[in-house]
Amino acid sequence: MNAAEDGEQIVAERVVLGMMAKDAFSQWLGITLVRVEPRAVSTRLTVREDMVNGFGVCHGGVTFSLADSALAFASNTHGRVTVSIENSITYPKRVSVGDVLTAVAEEESATNRLAFYRVTVLRSDDPSDVVALFRGTVYKTNQVFLPA
Amino acid sequence: MNAAEDGEQIVAERVVLGMMAKDAFSQWLGITLVRVEPRAVSTRLTVREDMVNGFGVCHGGVTFSLADSALAFASNTHGRVTVSIENSITYPKRVSVGDVLTAVAEEESATNRLAFYRVTVLRSDDPSDVVALFRGTVYKTNQVFLPA
Amino acid sequence: MNAAEDGEQIVAERVVLGMMAKDAFSQWLGITLVRVEPRAVSTRLTVREDMVNGFGVCHGGVTFSLADSALAFASNTHGRVTVSIENSITYPKRVSVGDVLTAVAEEESATNRLAFYRVTVLRSDDPSDVVALFRGTVYKTNQVFLPA
Amino acid sequence: MNAAEDGEQIVAERVVLGMMAKDAFSQWLGITLVRVEPRAVSTRLTVREDMVNGFGVCHGGVTFSLADSALAFASNTHGRVTVSIENSITYPKRVSVGDVLTAVAEEESATNRLAFYRVTVLRSDDPSDVVALFRGTVYKTNQVFLPA
Repeated sequence: MNAAEDGEQIVAERVVLGMMAKDAFSQWLGITLVRVEPRAVSTRLTVREDMVNGFGVCHGGVTFSLADSALAFASNTHGRVTVSIENSITYPKRVSVGDVLTAVAEEESATNRLAFYRVTVLRSDDPSDVVALFRGTVYKTNQVFLPA
Repeated sequence: MNAAEDGEQIVAERVVLGMMAKDAFSQWLGITLVRVEPRAVSTRLTVREDMVNGFGVCHGGVTFSLADSALAFASNTHGRVTVSIENSITYPKRVSVGDVLTAVAEEESATNRLAFYRVTVLRSDDPSDVVALFRGTVYKTNQVFLPA
Repeated sequence: MNAAEDGEQIVAERVVLGMMAKDAFSQWLGITLVRVEPRAVSTRLTVREDMVNGFGVCHGGVTFSLADSALAFASNTHGRVTVSIENSITYPKRVSVGDVLTAVAEEESATNRLAFYRVTVLRSDDPSDVVALFRGTVYKTNQVFLPA
Repeated sequence: MNAAEDGEQIVAERVVLGMMAKDAFSQWLGITLVRVEPRAVSTRLTVREDMVNGFGVCHGGVTFSLADSALAFASNTHGRVTVSIENSITYPKRVSVGDVLTAVAEEESATNRLAFYRVTVLRSDDPSDVVALFRGTVYKTNQVFLPA
């Protein structure tokens, strides 16, 4: 890693840790950080009894929120505030209480103003056990964001 | 309302109330039911301090979950279990702590196996203050669902 | 209609007719304009033999293109160049050769920089015969567009 | 490649060639096949003058159609008829007349009834020059499809 990459990594970590510290909803969900790099963040949670829907399985909103937090963290790692424009999610498999979910967010493409992310949600870190495919488009503002 | 419509309405209410009673995550979010009809349900919540993201505004996952619950309730009102295939959401406006959000779910179109829903999320029931546009596609299984 | 509204209508018509005149692909598709108003345009085509896919029904790309043209026209009616960020489409029903399709594009919501459109594609102008539900998010640039 | 894989490959090729032979719209677009494997097909076209929109750049519907054909071919390679439920597309970059576009469709995940595909559209086969990100969800019917 050269000096420029090292600087990018330091910014990424400061941004994500600063966001996480204020993110009350992610904290309630028990979200933890698994990986933090420029434009790539992984988050994790364990599905609890208070996260189920009316059929007793994991509420889609919980899976979505895990992916959405990973996207928000990843897309802000460059130190400029980004705003989410659009998200979509599909659910290949049901998720149950006790499952450990990991959301892997990575930038697929970007322009000056927009960035396109893919977030894959895996059960037990198993690449063959995909429980959700999430995609997000964000708008990069000019506002600098660099927590102290 | 004729007898058939009356029967549909009774099924819709039993299904939604039965789902709501078990939906621990919707309960934590403080979601309440505003309207329950066949293929049309409205849900509401007030954004709390513990629902914010790393920038201090309402976490996208909260808005999504409100809409997703409305969709789940509405798409099950016919008494057959439906499974969510795909959801998408856009966020025209930011949402803050204290805002009262109402998600209005309505069926746009349906085939024998699939149904397509639109969910509009309004602030303070104001039709001109749309904070999120959500869309969902669901698959209708053959499994009957009618809580006692 | 007051003077300001009249001015908006004139701009909308100039923009859409100017775009249509250069839009070689829409011309090949036989797209015609049914309605042109600020932020609301309807387009129409008749499905031809050379528009089918490998199963002999209307290619999804044809239905998409009809809706996409309606969106492009509608979102440029204010005289500033807009760029499409994201589109999604669902297909409740199959479309056959000879069907007349009308795409009705309307703005659902907008901010200073973004606009969110819904496009509904009907068969034979029948509101109960929805063959596609399309949604588009566009970015409004500062570039003025007003054909002579 | 063992005998089972060899059989799958033969089915995939028969299905895709059979579909392509009837797909009048893909033929008009000048779409050619670059790769045909079970659950993975790549298609290609060169953008022509008659494929532009009102701003003189490639119509979004053309890029969408290239990706949609790749999805349709790929998702039918197993020899059962699939029906498209939902597609979404984003456009990181503009496309111009003369550009050569390749759509790479691959299955991301599948259940018994549904399959989820990602289609990436590249310019000049350059993995760093992504012009569109497309995603499709399909429903697998029980109807066998195996052209003679």
